[in-house]
Amino acid sequence: MDDLVTPVSKAIAQLKGLLGDRLVTSASVREHHSHDTSRLAPHLPDAVVFPRTEEEVQAIVSACAAHGVPVVPFGAGSSMEGHTIPIRGGISLDTREMNRIVEIRPEDLLAVVQPGVTRKQLNVDLRETGLMFSVDPGADASIGGMASTRGSGTTSVRYGTMRENVLALRVVTPDGEAIQTGSRARKSSSGYDLTHLFVGSEGTLGVITELTVRLHPIPEAISSAICSFPTVANAVEAVIEAVQYGIPVARVEFLDEVAIASTNNYSKLGLPVAPTLFFEFHGTEAWVKEQAQLVEEITKGHDAISFRWTADADERAKLWQARHDLYWATKAIIPGFELYTGDICVPISRLAESIVAARADIDASSLKGQIIGHVGDGNFHTAYLIDPNNPEHLKEADEMADRVVERALAVGGTASGEHGIGIAKLKFMRKEHGKAVDVMKRIKAALDPLGIMNPGKMGDAG
Amino acid sequence: MDDLVTPVSKAIAQLKGLLGDRLVTSASVREHHSHDTSRLAPHLPDAVVFPRTEEEVQAIVSACAAHGVPVVPFGAGSSMEGHTIPIRGGISLDTREMNRIVEIRPEDLLAVVQPGVTRKQLNVDLRETGLMFSVDPGADASIGGMASTRGSGTTSVRYGTMRENVLALRVVTPDGEAIQTGSRARKSSSGYDLTHLFVGSEGTLGVITELTVRLHPIPEAISSAICSFPTVANAVEAVIEAVQYGIPVARVEFLDEVAIASTNNYSKLGLPVAPTLFFEFHGTEAWVKEQAQLVEEITKGHDAISFRWTADADERAKLWQARHDLYWATKAIIPGFELYTGDICVPISRLAESIVAARADIDASSLKGQIIGHVGDGNFHTAYLIDPNNPEHLKEADEMADRVVERALAVGGTASGEHGIGIAKLKFMRKEHGKAVDVMKRIKAALDPLGIMNPGKMGDAG
Repeated sequence: MDDLVTPVSKAIAQLKGLLGDRLVTSASVREHHSHDTSRLAPHLPDAVVFPRTEEEVQAIVSACAAHGVPVVPFGAGSSMEGHTIPIRGGISLDTREMNRIVEIRPEDLLAVVQPGVTRKQLNVDLRETGLMFSVDPGADASIGGMASTRGSGTTSVRYGTMRENVLALRVVTPDGEAIQTGSRARKSSSGYDLTHLFVGSEGTLGVITELTVRLHPIPEAISSAICSFPTVANAVEAVIEAVQYGIPVARVEFLDEVAIASTNNYSKLGLPVAPTLFFEFHGTEAWVKEQAQLVEEITKGHDAISFRWTADADERAKLWQARHDLYWATKAIIPGFELYTGDICVPISRLAESIVAARADIDASSLKGQIIGHVGDGNFHTAYLIDPNNPEHLKEADEMADRVVERALAVGGTASGEHGIGIAKLKFMRKEHGKAVDVMKRIKAALDPLGIMNPGKMGDAG
Repeated sequence: MDDLVTPVSKAIAQLKGLLGDRLVTSASVREHHSHDTSRLAPHLPDAVVFPRTEEEVQAIVSACAAHGVPVVPFGAGSSMEGHTIPIRGGISLDTREMNRIVEIRPEDLLAVVQPGVTRKQLNVDLRETGLMFSVDPGADASIGGMASTRGSGTTSVRYGTMRENVLALRVVTPDGEAIQTGSRARKSSSGYDLTHLFVGSEGTLGVITELTVRLHPIPEAISSAICSFPTVANAVEAVIEAVQYGIPVARVEFLDEVAIASTNNYSKLGLPVAPTLFFEFHGTEAWVKEQAQLVEEITKGHDAISFRWTADADERAKLWQARHDLYWATKAIIPGFELYTGDICVPISRLAESIVAARADIDASSLKGQIIGHVGDGNFHTAYLIDPNNPEHLKEADEMADRVVERALAVGGTASGEHGIGIAKLKFMRKEHGKAVDVMKRIKAALDPLGIMNPGKMGDAG
């Protein structure tokens, strides 16, 4: 801290009285809150606060409003596009001490949690109920953070994203008021849908202080299947047909040849090196078996090279562990290199061509890379291996990632399927949303006239 | 039209040049647009317009903005709480000539439609595709109107409400701009979720000019079941257990004893006069059979009096026809009387007590009435039979309906499950949403600073 009396030093002094040692200005804690998992330049907050209650969040936001100081909510720090980087300094509001599971209501298939609760923490607490919180973005993210980025993952094709799984919120708005959005009813035709306005707003409209989330029954039986195809188009067409047939696949993950080769190498799966789908089916014993049989039939009609299904829990665990280890498997291709990750979503009819074009880009570049996808949703990720110390690599990766997005937008898709806008994708907001960006900005200005909530991000884009 | 030059006469003169005989000021057409299906007092619009294109909607809204004249969107006129009544006069914007199905994309499980397309019209066009538009509010409503009221119905327990089934919109905002919200991708983490802000906003934030809606595969097999219980609680607990078990019931409708008696009388069903569930199961032949068996087991555990299931299409059609004819069956109880309909939604754990209390209210009143419900969602409707010429009846019905809502709000429910706020439920907005109403009003003021879009309704509530 310097001796100069600035707005931020006034806000910090005011909050120190309230929070004591839960307001931290040490270099190490500020550094931890200066970045997320992205490659983007870090920026230090002036202080980090660790509130425990909604009232404390109200006091923090009110103090920052009074002094015009930025507030940047921070969950588990697992965001991937720079969401939590406090690019204009101010206060990083870390929700880790708001980690209480407030209520579990099995009959209503819902849980009420504070924003710092992580998805794994909630699922541990649910163990006795036979229910699960379904959204799984890979990282053990905070549920508040997952709501803020409208996160999803492998199970969203069946159980939905955070959009479908957040029923109600408590939010501290930029003027320090606490509001409730939504209710515990499963549906409602009452009032503007503020819940969905806050879900995905990346901390630019307020601070989420409580979430009511949907739970789903843990299925009686689960089975998996692995299926390889001669081409990407065959694989995608098989998925389209399975979905059109009404088979409620619980997961269907695409891995391209390079991803299969690296996972073979890392996880010793011994799979044919070809475009591959990992399926998971949920249901009763009989229904799971029937789903696998129906999908096998469908894949045969699309020239599948092989179809292997299993209801064995160990074999299934091995398969999904390999899928989850893909990050490490890919990094292992060139030791010391980093993964540069892309994320777009297209209408599923345009998925095959989008993947093929992204693959061709990689093959024509000097970089190695792979493509994986939550293919039932039309969502896929590119991962380029780059030497973090080589600016040419970064430039080449940037250009390729931009082309993937441009092509997605050209076919009616979106610049982000699940990672969000953060900082890295601000440049696509106007292109994707056109004049709707002006409506977004008017909403931002109406709710946050001082511009204190996560400034320079989604609310100010385009 | 009078000779006085008023803002509205100027707007009408301006629009007459654009629309010719698609701007109508005849008494009969104005009368038709002065009411909906509710008991609420009608109010005449000054004129009714029938645009065919988004550009025409833009011109209409721009002219109304220029002269400060209200614009009230009108679909099929089947709303139930006064949504479309132009209580401050102005222009009723009827979307019936915007009834083109723009595009059907079977591979992407979506259709693009103009707002005046009705749900039945879309389903006729889908016949060759094996797909269906699932939302069924009973009436053959316009899809634009269903989106505006966040409508739902019997199938929402499985396939979702309009909230889950609208993927993207085109909207003319109150300043006459046309924007696109959402995309054709099934999921997105890009930008504020404007789609969900407009869905359910009851024409107070803009005019919907195009909708991208989700489609679902028509199931290979469908079966139905009817099950009677000694008490409401038994019936509701059976539903809760079935849902917790993970059985994806496609419909589950509750009818109380009075509803069963009237449907027996009207549709000759011969059912036991007891709290009853109508189930429908969708899936493959084997899976549908298994679902029915599992549900039968579950209902036995909750003291079911009888369980009758059928995969026979004619018997099923008869059953659901009877459910759809309930309106007429109930009206037939006392010829000349009208139905006064209520609509709330509660967490399902509070459903049994809510229904029992609503039933006790009716039994203690001078009126006859019944209760039916989309019970898998916790949504139920009260219907009181009133003599429309007896103000005492209306007063008694008003008081009972209010108590149903008050009790729903007290247990974490909502003032409307699917009929919306309109005029009739404005008085509950502040009670349900608290300070969130101020956020809604700030959004309304930011998007519609002149207050021309359906004024005096949801955007100005509380």
